[in-house]
Amino acid sequence: MPADHLDATFAALADPTRRAILARLALGETSVNELAQPFDISLPAISRHLKVLEKAGLISRGRAAQSRPCRLNPRQFKTAADWLNQYREYWEESFDRLDEYLRKLKYQRNKSKQDKSKQKENPHAHSPRKH
Amino acid sequence: MPADHLDATFAALADPTRRAILARLALGETSVNELAQPFDISLPAISRHLKVLEKAGLISRGRAAQSRPCRLNPRQFKTAADWLNQYREYWEESFDRLDEYLRKLKYQRNKSKQDKSKQKENPHAHSPRKH
Repeated sequence: MPADHLDATFAALADPTRRAILARLALGETSVNELAQPFDISLPAISRHLKVLEKAGLISRGRAAQSRPCRLNPRQFKTAADWLNQYREYWEESFDRLDEYLRKLKYQRNKSKQDKSKQKENPHAHSPRKH
Repeated sequence: MPADHLDATFAALADPTRRAILARLALGETSVNELAQPFDISLPAISRHLKVLEKAGLISRGRAAQSRPCRLNPRQFKTAADWLNQYREYWEESFDRLDEYLRKLKYQRNKSKQDKSKQKENPHAHSPRKH
């Protein structure tokens, strides 16, 4: 996959209408007219978004002249996800560190509670001995 | 995560220099000067890329006035990957279908080879009976 195709894919994903179009296509193949219905934008605007998505490899379109049905092209989603998933070890590591920090915090809080309740039971336990 | 933050994240990823900067930062925190060395672009250009990455939440920068060291912010990688991974079932399904198709193709090819070799062993096996 050439780098510029990954450029086009990420650029295509950087728009909420295009992401909503992809979410709609996840429900199944559809014509441009059907696709446009839930969106409050013109047919030419939808067509422009579809061109961007098609160029990015995220959708493909049928050849039927009138409707040119659109469908998801899952392979390109995988290419983009694979690029991001290279960094998985970093976010997992950072969540592990956060998890460890929270566990330490919980341990210290419990320990301090226990110490306080011990002190209540035996208030002179830690006071200096009188000679 | 507001939608526009996901817009900024995908837009930031749509550039090969910015993706290369992220790959460099995966090796460890670094200053802007060190970061600029392998790239054949000016320091101000690198700074502009860093601003885009910082705004997108993909990196964060230290406060030391001179160097302002940069590091990856793995949480935002996860947010973008999570969005794409919603579509995982589609690419897995499409690869399953491809896999099934290839298995069928292989089966048919093997079967046709076997039929041919059987015919060589017994060339009249399938010829019509004479009455």
